[in-house]
Amino acid sequence: MNRPTATLLISCPDQKGLVAKIANFIYANGGNIIHADQHTDFAAGLFLTRIEWQLDGFNLPRELIAPAFGAIAQPLQAHWQLHFSDTIPRIAIWVSKQDHCLFDLIWRHKAKEFTAEIPLIISNHPDLKEVAEQFGIDFHHIPITKENKPTQEAQQLKLLQHYKIDLVVLAKYMQIVSPDFINKFPNILNIHHSFLPAFIGTSPYHQAYQRGVKIIGATAHYVTPELDAGPIIEQDVARVSHRDDVADLIRKGKDLERVVLARAVRSHLQNRVLVYGNRTVVFE
Amino acid sequence: MNRPTATLLISCPDQKGLVAKIANFIYANGGNIIHADQHTDFAAGLFLTRIEWQLDGFNLPRELIAPAFGAIAQPLQAHWQLHFSDTIPRIAIWVSKQDHCLFDLIWRHKAKEFTAEIPLIISNHPDLKEVAEQFGIDFHHIPITKENKPTQEAQQLKLLQHYKIDLVVLAKYMQIVSPDFINKFPNILNIHHSFLPAFIGTSPYHQAYQRGVKIIGATAHYVTPELDAGPIIEQDVARVSHRDDVADLIRKGKDLERVVLARAVRSHLQNRVLVYGNRTVVFE
Amino acid sequence: MNRPTATLLISCPDQKGLVAKIANFIYANGGNIIHADQHTDFAAGLFLTRIEWQLDGFNLPRELIAPAFGAIAQPLQAHWQLHFSDTIPRIAIWVSKQDHCLFDLIWRHKAKEFTAEIPLIISNHPDLKEVAEQFGIDFHHIPITKENKPTQEAQQLKLLQHYKIDLVVLAKYMQIVSPDFINKFPNILNIHHSFLPAFIGTSPYHQAYQRGVKIIGATAHYVTPELDAGPIIEQDVARVSHRDDVADLIRKGKDLERVVLARAVRSHLQNRVLVYGNRTVVFE
Amino acid sequence: MNRPTATLLISCPDQKGLVAKIANFIYANGGNIIHADQHTDFAAGLFLTRIEWQLDGFNLPRELIAPAFGAIAQPLQAHWQLHFSDTIPRIAIWVSKQDHCLFDLIWRHKAKEFTAEIPLIISNHPDLKEVAEQFGIDFHHIPITKENKPTQEAQQLKLLQHYKIDLVVLAKYMQIVSPDFINKFPNILNIHHSFLPAFIGTSPYHQAYQRGVKIIGATAHYVTPELDAGPIIEQDVARVSHRDDVADLIRKGKDLERVVLARAVRSHLQNRVLVYGNRTVVFE
Repeated sequence: MNRPTATLLISCPDQKGLVAKIANFIYANGGNIIHADQHTDFAAGLFLTRIEWQLDGFNLPRELIAPAFGAIAQPLQAHWQLHFSDTIPRIAIWVSKQDHCLFDLIWRHKAKEFTAEIPLIISNHPDLKEVAEQFGIDFHHIPITKENKPTQEAQQLKLLQHYKIDLVVLAKYMQIVSPDFINKFPNILNIHHSFLPAFIGTSPYHQAYQRGVKIIGATAHYVTPELDAGPIIEQDVARVSHRDDVADLIRKGKDLERVVLARAVRSHLQNRVLVYGNRTVVFE
Repeated sequence: MNRPTATLLISCPDQKGLVAKIANFIYANGGNIIHADQHTDFAAGLFLTRIEWQLDGFNLPRELIAPAFGAIAQPLQAHWQLHFSDTIPRIAIWVSKQDHCLFDLIWRHKAKEFTAEIPLIISNHPDLKEVAEQFGIDFHHIPITKENKPTQEAQQLKLLQHYKIDLVVLAKYMQIVSPDFINKFPNILNIHHSFLPAFIGTSPYHQAYQRGVKIIGATAHYVTPELDAGPIIEQDVARVSHRDDVADLIRKGKDLERVVLARAVRSHLQNRVLVYGNRTVVFE
Repeated sequence: MNRPTATLLISCPDQKGLVAKIANFIYANGGNIIHADQHTDFAAGLFLTRIEWQLDGFNLPRELIAPAFGAIAQPLQAHWQLHFSDTIPRIAIWVSKQDHCLFDLIWRHKAKEFTAEIPLIISNHPDLKEVAEQFGIDFHHIPITKENKPTQEAQQLKLLQHYKIDLVVLAKYMQIVSPDFINKFPNILNIHHSFLPAFIGTSPYHQAYQRGVKIIGATAHYVTPELDAGPIIEQDVARVSHRDDVADLIRKGKDLERVVLARAVRSHLQNRVLVYGNRTVVFE
Repeated sequence: MNRPTATLLISCPDQKGLVAKIANFIYANGGNIIHADQHTDFAAGLFLTRIEWQLDGFNLPRELIAPAFGAIAQPLQAHWQLHFSDTIPRIAIWVSKQDHCLFDLIWRHKAKEFTAEIPLIISNHPDLKEVAEQFGIDFHHIPITKENKPTQEAQQLKLLQHYKIDLVVLAKYMQIVSPDFINKFPNILNIHHSFLPAFIGTSPYHQAYQRGVKIIGATAHYVTPELDAGPIIEQDVARVSHRDDVADLIRKGKDLERVVLARAVRSHLQNRVLVYGNRTVVFE
């Protein structure tokens, strides 16, 4: 598990011989495949695959893998990403006042459930500063109002650059990120506290209570300019009953939010998520 | 289990002594309570209860129970229903072309999972006539168009009266019932093939596929004039993945629809469902 | 979906180049892969894969596929099976007195949820003869006692040969099949009404009630000589509470049994199940 | 929610008038019932109930409630407990090396998901001392060997007395507590990392992996002298596949263990759990 691997995530128009071509590229260079999975979306005419192999004994030096595979990918009109398992991604966690997702991500990080560095926490409230300090993570309090949003987002962006952040995790950030920001930094993953597309926007647990649902949910998705409409990575649900008031829904929902967000972050960091259109393939 | 029981479903403004008053009414008349459950909706200031007792040894003759309890209920401003377990409710099942919910309800009926008579099947298509005949149930084919809807609904209503129907179960009927009809016959239970309020209206599985959800659902609810917005009785969900195309969602959804509809019908027939506002209490 | 495909299920000691070798075999002969999935059991040092491709346009005639692939498989020390999607497997369903799994399998068969022929039902009781007749399936009543078991099993075996049965589905057969029989006809799939390995043997719902569990389950597995210990294909569970007595567990369990058995039968018939040791890989 | 309440948990042989008698006791003394639930185990001939009422406006002073109700309970041969919501129970958490359940309980305690004091952590290993200090909880390291167990248990017991502990929560303590200890301090709640009664004893995830199950579970139960055989309070499960090795089962299991233990602790602390025989009623 600890020996370095390379992972290719590829999508391209379906045609004969794709599995063979990609597998041959690895094999011809002496690579040992440890995970390979593929999916064909027949409706879209699209082939999607994830392939991971050990770099030990692979004949191509790292810096030549991308150009070499690029030559194969180009005639296939493939979109592709190449990741190395020993390149540790850097995460910024954005929070508001609630601490459950933050605590959970930090605990899982310490428990090595995923590999990443977490050098930065950003919040529009000062409440969780102490938690950040407790775990030795830099905390930046950036309050947001309608008026100051553009300047504050510029400040946020600067921080992401300064800390060399690869992924922003909105761990109950409770603020809408502007399309302009998303455009400049598109790697944003959010936990929404409902079973999307039900209960978009604010106060989904209140909405759920009003509607009298018997099941509540949580949804982890990539952030896109349209609110709560980005590609879904993971969802889960919990049963509720007439005995549960809004406070109970919120309490039960927290357990969902923690686990759904954690699974999505883990899948993302292991390069298991491939987005196409507004959908995801999550290779397991 | 087979000895006759009476069941009271009661809702009234919350106040002290309600449990005692209702229990005393049963006890003072020699009744043996076999199920009692209550719920207080503190936000609505409402007390809701279900109480069931054996009629053997109960001192009040049946016809006097309602007037006697009415005298207690009136000062409490209570809404209440009285049911006897040996009054067998009569169900009409309305279908379209799909047979899975129909087959399932008939099988459960034969397996005595719920107590009812099913003398009537109505459909806007002739396809399931054979199934009806196979099980000896009258089948009426009433095709619906925009133009003939009012006259056909009048015909449907006549059939319900003729067959002395207590409950209409829309078992994938795939037609909207008019507010006027609902007004005249409000006891209608529907299975909707999505996790409401997500994917209201037609083709919910296509909608779900488009949105890229990772979980699909089904919802049983009472029918109200607003489409797919009535009080929810039961919901359940199933996990799906990128490997599931629309046909797979439909196939997996059928299993959900069968079981969710069956649970809702059973709860309704056992007088376990109390509607208030647009919500239900389902006493277990 | 309806165009004929070939499927290879392969397991062999893990080594470099396996994906490439197998994919090349398909590609070199002009095959269009529509499903490929692999799994490596690192602890066992075993590579397992399922690969399915369209026969249209495949250059090798059917009868040459096995010998051609055999030449590749032999040096890899591979175990492998080759299936053609238009070879319709023939199922015998064995039942006792309960009809829910039988009805369910027949309904799914009619709904084309899986492709098979069901020419034969065997039972140790006469009760379900009528159901068999209703759907035009031959029914053989073969009562079993301790004394007559060997001769009756000989009779059962003769029927399986006569009807050219590929798979026996024990759909609540409630009898133990002898090791000798299993030896002669090993393709047997059973539904056990518990979450195995909890509650092996008879009356699992009574055992579950006695133990006071909060969740019940059902398990579909291949039958091996050791009782309820064969490779598990599928399991599912349902929540129960103190309100559920044994009859409720049985009722709720029936819904589990139906769906768990159906999923296992479907996976098996689509050649998605690969057994190794006492485990299964179920390719999705 | 914050106004003090009294709760009665009662079990007695079933007979007519029980609901009325108990409700009258509250009502006659001016109590406002905010929760009442009952269950009849017909097989055991046992009536079980939980009733909670506000102490504001209740005419009986606290110290007279027990004697007054005792007079009612005695002729009914009832077992009963009386709890006041403002008597804060004191918990000792026992751990070994794993921190996930400990962290989770502490986080929920801080989030006010349950009301208790946690003054004491006991462990047979020193690893989690730092966590205890971080949250200001006393930590006692009491290593256990076969030889020193009796003296160490005497030491543990002394600590429980010193800290006035009401409930011991074994949060992955990984040691067997002796029958003698349980006899002296019976209020012990344990999380077992399997779906009991499957995989009793050590290394349940390894056992589960060996058996090839498709679902894993966790079980919270009261501790009794027979290993892993005490009354079950709560269970939950998670789906696994052939892709999950033992490490994955352990990781997925941790999420189960956290949530199952937390639910059981919360139900216990809210006096919602009534044990009879080897079973529990969990009033919701």
